[in-house]
Amino acid sequence: MKIVIVGGSFAGVTAAVTARKKFPKAEIVLLEKKNTIGFIPSALHLILNSEIESLQQAYFISEAEIEEHNIHLILAAEVKKMDIKNQIISYENQNILKNIAYDKLILATGSTQNSYRIKGIDSERILKYKSIEKAQEALALVNENQTFTIVGGGQVGVEMADCLVRQNKKVQLIESMSGILVKYFDQEMLAPLLLEMKNKGVISYFNETVQEIKEIENRVILTTNNREIESECAVFALSVKPNLPYLDPTIRCHEDGSIFVDEYLKTSVENIFAIGDCIQIPSSLSSETFYVSLTNNAVRAGVVVVDNLVEPQTVFIGSARTIGTKVFDYFIASTGMTEAESIFFDEEISTTYVTQSSSLFNEESIKGKLLYNKETRKILGAQFISKSNILEKINTLSLGIQMGITVEELAQKDYYFHPAWSPVYDVTNQLGLMKD
Amino acid sequence: MKIVIVGGSFAGVTAAVTARKKFPKAEIVLLEKKNTIGFIPSALHLILNSEIESLQQAYFISEAEIEEHNIHLILAAEVKKMDIKNQIISYENQNILKNIAYDKLILATGSTQNSYRIKGIDSERILKYKSIEKAQEALALVNENQTFTIVGGGQVGVEMADCLVRQNKKVQLIESMSGILVKYFDQEMLAPLLLEMKNKGVISYFNETVQEIKEIENRVILTTNNREIESECAVFALSVKPNLPYLDPTIRCHEDGSIFVDEYLKTSVENIFAIGDCIQIPSSLSSETFYVSLTNNAVRAGVVVVDNLVEPQTVFIGSARTIGTKVFDYFIASTGMTEAESIFFDEEISTTYVTQSSSLFNEESIKGKLLYNKETRKILGAQFISKSNILEKINTLSLGIQMGITVEELAQKDYYFHPAWSPVYDVTNQLGLMKD
Repeated sequence: MKIVIVGGSFAGVTAAVTARKKFPKAEIVLLEKKNTIGFIPSALHLILNSEIESLQQAYFISEAEIEEHNIHLILAAEVKKMDIKNQIISYENQNILKNIAYDKLILATGSTQNSYRIKGIDSERILKYKSIEKAQEALALVNENQTFTIVGGGQVGVEMADCLVRQNKKVQLIESMSGILVKYFDQEMLAPLLLEMKNKGVISYFNETVQEIKEIENRVILTTNNREIESECAVFALSVKPNLPYLDPTIRCHEDGSIFVDEYLKTSVENIFAIGDCIQIPSSLSSETFYVSLTNNAVRAGVVVVDNLVEPQTVFIGSARTIGTKVFDYFIASTGMTEAESIFFDEEISTTYVTQSSSLFNEESIKGKLLYNKETRKILGAQFISKSNILEKINTLSLGIQMGITVEELAQKDYYFHPAWSPVYDVTNQLGLMKD
Repeated sequence: MKIVIVGGSFAGVTAAVTARKKFPKAEIVLLEKKNTIGFIPSALHLILNSEIESLQQAYFISEAEIEEHNIHLILAAEVKKMDIKNQIISYENQNILKNIAYDKLILATGSTQNSYRIKGIDSERILKYKSIEKAQEALALVNENQTFTIVGGGQVGVEMADCLVRQNKKVQLIESMSGILVKYFDQEMLAPLLLEMKNKGVISYFNETVQEIKEIENRVILTTNNREIESECAVFALSVKPNLPYLDPTIRCHEDGSIFVDEYLKTSVENIFAIGDCIQIPSSLSSETFYVSLTNNAVRAGVVVVDNLVEPQTVFIGSARTIGTKVFDYFIASTGMTEAESIFFDEEISTTYVTQSSSLFNEESIKGKLLYNKETRKILGAQFISKSNILEKINTLSLGIQMGITVEELAQKDYYFHPAWSPVYDVTNQLGLMKD
């Protein structure tokens, strides 16, 4: 069996490594557009926050490790077209178009930012950092300049704002919605974070969209629907969309351009599968699928798809959209539905809030919020904010959502207690207890 | 309604505070044998490990906080007998026997160590520290002496060994089983911890039982089945049993002396409930009940019992026996069944092991072990050891056991990913993936 995987980011690499374990004798080919593989897209954040010392460290896997798995890695290989009838794909490598046949094909070409359409986006004063070369250039721009405008108040945008403020830069933030991280958090939960951003000098412009980018004398001027915003550099951290210019038009897609896959991650065409930021995946909260670009979804789909290459075997459970990060000294984490989006939910929702100390002798508080279905009692979403590292707690609640736990079951679930690291009654249980 | 709660440790206090919320108009009386309330039994460990600065801090709740809840607290009140027909209990307070009537009675008088029968146990060279006065005396003994023998290699014993080694004391450990923490860990998982204990100078005597205690010239000599072990002081950290000298004999008990309660935590007598270390509780792994003395069980039962005082309403789910601690620089955590005890389980068990870095840029490894039912695929137990703090991860697996998750579901559960704090694929998922 010859398995060809297109795209060497988290999804593709995971599928390749998992396939090697499951099919020791298969020929496995991994095609990657860039010259290197395994670079972590948020490496610039890691180095600015001193999590790593050099960009060279910012790889989740190395070429050598991939080749140790006896995976045939072809770098600088950009897929150009597909011949689904003869099971052949064509890719450009060193300006030559080459063909490769497959028995099983896994598409994992990821996403691109929606910003690519804005006029002026190619300015060298706009930081781009998905590859190591670009990240090095971006790092130089950070070192040489003092004023930055970030476009997009999602996870990437707010993390970048935090990184730049730590470097004593002056930061402005433009967001088209009425707050930050709106997909994951109800804004009242982020009140202390928003205040801290303001105190640290971040100027936020909400409900504004960038329409034009001009570069004038070492400055970029961003024109929004309301004003012109000037700074030395800008960062675009907008939402992303599937990157599929090569896709055969007979492969069924969703309206947003993502590939339609069945519950086994198979496309509408025999022997072709898709994972990662190319596809919509099932929501843990409804029978719908949705587009949500998260590394953990990519990795988990990369694991599951391998089970289904020969015959449908393992249903992909999809995502509760679980995230966790630390910005402006606050650990924040979210899973499932927010109250803001619950208006799209047919049934009645209840919410509970809890604020308690993170452990018996650590008075740093944890604030938590829980959403549940008032009728079925099943939990639908949770959010945390704390100066203590509570990130792991979101994984427990995410599993609770996946397994259909009720608010009453949550209140009395088991947990470890130790007076040095935990409160007497865990905050996740407390959220369940506060039910109406 | 008049609710009388006997015993003011974790179970009783939780029940009292929860009852106040549910029944704003009830009269609530809390009787506690000691002169103070809320003292944490492991306070001596906390102060020796510098988690707290003074024993005065080692309270999980204060008298004032209890009284703020409008709970009538009576200290130095030792229950002596019960009149179940007339719903009256008698307690001794300042040498006077007093009576108190109840509509609902909750027994939460906890446990005592099984060591109380050993001759010589009252020696002043044996550290006792369940009350603040005793803890102060114990602290003085630690400061004044250099050699200690710990009897019992469970959580308390091993934590105490660690505390004493940190104070540069010379420690010997006697354990009747063939290893440490055997109830919670398979010994191969603790190999690095056992080695570290040895390297730190702890001398362990396994499969030995103390039969006699002698005190000779500022020394205690413990006679086991094999030898005499001498040191300046000793600590007994043996298993515990219910403390119920006052119990009316018509109340049904288990063979081990613990009170029999139904799934609603009600005893065999109308209007009398029992929680905490007095009772056996349901196991998350079978239809059996078992005796397991853990604070989190006490607290959770204290929450649930209140729901059932007026009418049976909430079934207590019992315990997966989840624990987490840090000893000799290793964080260790366990939930559910160990492989050693799986021989008592009727069905075939499979195990998986994983060792991986705790996060992308933290090479400190996590070792994990998972047990699952080979036929039903449901997970039955998990153990972790790491120098990184992985304690919260056990809560996710504990919830998985409670909700009946299969090993395949575990492999693809959702989790947060952040390159600064997590690996690409969570260790708990990895345990599921390693299935056979």
